[in-house]
Amino acid sequence: MAFLRRTVGSGIRRYSQGAAKEWLTDDFLDSLRAVVGSAKVSAAAVVREQHGHDESMHRCCPPDAVVWPQTVEQVSLLASTCYSRGAPMIPFGTGTGLEGGVSAIQGGVCFNLTQMDRVLELNTEDFTVAVEPGVTRKALNHFLRGSGLWFPVDPGADASLCGMAATSASGTNAVRYGTMRQNVLNLQVVLPDGKVLHTGGQNRRPRKSAAGYNLTGLFVGSEGTLGFITQATVRLHGIPEATVAAVCGFPSVKAAVDSTVQILQAGIPIARIEFLDEVMMGACNRYSGLSYAEQPTLFLEFHGSTGGVREQVEATGEIVKSNDGSDFAWAQEQEARDQLWAARHNAWYAALALCPGRKAYSTDVCVPISRLPEVLVETKKDLLASKLTGPIVGHVGDGNFHCILMCDSEDDDEKGRVKEFAERLARRALAMDGTCTGEHGVGLGKRQLLREEVGDVALSTMQRIKAALDPKNLMNPGKVL
Amino acid sequence: MAFLRRTVGSGIRRYSQGAAKEWLTDDFLDSLRAVVGSAKVSAAAVVREQHGHDESMHRCCPPDAVVWPQTVEQVSLLASTCYSRGAPMIPFGTGTGLEGGVSAIQGGVCFNLTQMDRVLELNTEDFTVAVEPGVTRKALNHFLRGSGLWFPVDPGADASLCGMAATSASGTNAVRYGTMRQNVLNLQVVLPDGKVLHTGGQNRRPRKSAAGYNLTGLFVGSEGTLGFITQATVRLHGIPEATVAAVCGFPSVKAAVDSTVQILQAGIPIARIEFLDEVMMGACNRYSGLSYAEQPTLFLEFHGSTGGVREQVEATGEIVKSNDGSDFAWAQEQEARDQLWAARHNAWYAALALCPGRKAYSTDVCVPISRLPEVLVETKKDLLASKLTGPIVGHVGDGNFHCILMCDSEDDDEKGRVKEFAERLARRALAMDGTCTGEHGVGLGKRQLLREEVGDVALSTMQRIKAALDPKNLMNPGKVL
Repeated sequence: MAFLRRTVGSGIRRYSQGAAKEWLTDDFLDSLRAVVGSAKVSAAAVVREQHGHDESMHRCCPPDAVVWPQTVEQVSLLASTCYSRGAPMIPFGTGTGLEGGVSAIQGGVCFNLTQMDRVLELNTEDFTVAVEPGVTRKALNHFLRGSGLWFPVDPGADASLCGMAATSASGTNAVRYGTMRQNVLNLQVVLPDGKVLHTGGQNRRPRKSAAGYNLTGLFVGSEGTLGFITQATVRLHGIPEATVAAVCGFPSVKAAVDSTVQILQAGIPIARIEFLDEVMMGACNRYSGLSYAEQPTLFLEFHGSTGGVREQVEATGEIVKSNDGSDFAWAQEQEARDQLWAARHNAWYAALALCPGRKAYSTDVCVPISRLPEVLVETKKDLLASKLTGPIVGHVGDGNFHCILMCDSEDDDEKGRVKEFAERLARRALAMDGTCTGEHGVGLGKRQLLREEVGDVALSTMQRIKAALDPKNLMNPGKVL
Repeated sequence: MAFLRRTVGSGIRRYSQGAAKEWLTDDFLDSLRAVVGSAKVSAAAVVREQHGHDESMHRCCPPDAVVWPQTVEQVSLLASTCYSRGAPMIPFGTGTGLEGGVSAIQGGVCFNLTQMDRVLELNTEDFTVAVEPGVTRKALNHFLRGSGLWFPVDPGADASLCGMAATSASGTNAVRYGTMRQNVLNLQVVLPDGKVLHTGGQNRRPRKSAAGYNLTGLFVGSEGTLGFITQATVRLHGIPEATVAAVCGFPSVKAAVDSTVQILQAGIPIARIEFLDEVMMGACNRYSGLSYAEQPTLFLEFHGSTGGVREQVEATGEIVKSNDGSDFAWAQEQEARDQLWAARHNAWYAALALCPGRKAYSTDVCVPISRLPEVLVETKKDLLASKLTGPIVGHVGDGNFHCILMCDSEDDDEKGRVKEFAERLARRALAMDGTCTGEHGVGLGKRQLLREEVGDVALSTMQRIKAALDPKNLMNPGKVL
């Protein structure tokens, strides 16, 4: 792990390597302190290192300083200070990204937004809530207890909602409730020059609008490259009257995935449908103390009225049976369901525990659901041929799955095979009309794949938008484009 | 109705008024003919007039020429010709817009896209279809007969799907199935300079993606100001097992709207919930030969399994009863339902028939549903005080409603009262955290209201995007911004 800079006291000592950073002066750091106070600015190596990486294998690139603004006004003043000096700016939420989105590859100032953590306005009648960027999805759902409402988008990690908006997160419930794209109604954004933008107008929250360009949709998924998301107004959903979860094993990958496709095509409004291959099931059994059969498996959850859930379960049961699936193992009570989904959400750590000492890289392709059986079967073959350990888990109801590739970062040959496998998988998904990223984003690692996916005209259109909104290329530079 | 130009044979004679159009030469028209053939270019006055207006009261502004491209390659060549000469370009679908979106206020070339009318690729397994810009929603649903699938977004008019994407259309089914924003997966767009953009990559159709900026979302609702939508890939939905529709009268506007709010808050997945006030009901009775009580009324439709629909109907019935609603008048069979919704969709013509010889202007505000009772009651009072006839009808499940204001275009006093009333209504919606347009768009008429709604920073951000993608301001100039 290489540091580009290190600090001595409050001063800055420059290494000879790396591009010159004219902006990086003691005076500059003082101007940041003048906005938020000395305690909310740090240039300490350990702090910078903490902020230079997410949960992925991407190399740690520490920022030169970290700031903890408390208000949107402070974010605005800090941004305009950085903008006038030409300092790169990197938004930081919970650091749970998976594509290197927070790496400060050109150095700069990391804005840690976790201390802005108020729930600002809850409208239970309209099913909307506005939150500051430090509010995580679990914190919001805790806040909502007793209201009869919840926020369903669930990427597994306890990510911040504004970070989830920035990366267009989704996860297990997206098949029923949509991704962040469908659940963000409005955003407050601090632009690189410090101006404060309300993408849908200040405090507005109609269910739909046709007023002007869809700026909300543009900032969702912009990965911090266009501005700081300092407030998000999101849709809430009613807690269903009935919820049941079930686990079901299959004799083959194809049987499990065929069932998924048929369940969706039958129009069953399933809330969650997650696939785990036999390797992943084994890892989850060991990590979470479960005892499911180690075979291709679906984790299912049904939401609705009592009668509606019964209908869904019956229809799903018939489909599963026709594909030689096992009987359902039920998880009806809250506690049992929590245990089941905790096991699913701990898949990442379960995979890491398979190969102690190794790191992991998660692929993230998404294809039209009709192509799922084919892409999964081919991917399993490729794993074998590549001699890689890569348990598969995914939101198959959306056609989205992950291969968690275990990798010894000291083993160049293995690193090479992981990289080549991941690129082959992405291109396999592209060849099947899919995308190289269903939910993790482009970040650092998928910029070339993005070009292949969308083509030169779309890429240059994105670049023109970036240049129009961030003409100095200071917002999270080097990401996405 | 004033013409800015008139043609003599194939030549152009300029009037003295209006800005000079250096590009408007015989040679220019010849270069358009070279692309599409002489029969597909017209500068005849009657043709230009037909293309200079939509269904709204906005003044007819004819383009200088109309072209009928047959392929995306032709659209691209025509656009690059116009771009190099500096000629404004206006996309034209079915001309059923309501905010003057097709008015050629600076003249230019109107691209009538109705002859590109092929359904390109239907994927029944993935519930997606790609269509050319001339395919209307009724044509698509006709094409889909027997497939078990349908496209639900229904603004009333038989609009083209690409036009609906351009204006972010919605309508009666949006409360359940979303608007065009939720139903467009990918777009092919010809940019002003003729380059062909695939907003989500060529032929891609995953259910979700986190790959780069959401260009699809940006073009949906851009009202022809950023490029020509020449292909749309949209989501389809399964035809529900059971569908029933019902009509229910209420003693007051508030009782009807309170019922709506309660139905939504109970989480009943209603497919359509439309409000008609007593004036609108009277007009619909007369126009469509119905005999419903002339009182505030809800038209409802339920989709689902047989059991699910029964549950929805029971739960809705209880809510309606608690608000002193009448018993349901049922429309269970397809024919009865068609008659019911035809009456609803003919509301515009029914309103026009109320005051023969008058024109109509439809407002289009949308507020959070909890504010609906208040905004509707205040609006009814304002109508009385303003001495205007304005039947009210709307997609109240989304908080969206229209006041169809009857107006004698020769009566300047009435025109003034209509304009002032519409602005007051829009600002009333803005004051209740809503929007000045839920679905009709900004077009010509709501540019000042857009500024008030989103604020200066959002407006200048939109302007920067426009300048980045259309630097010569040739795409549908003068609209939205």
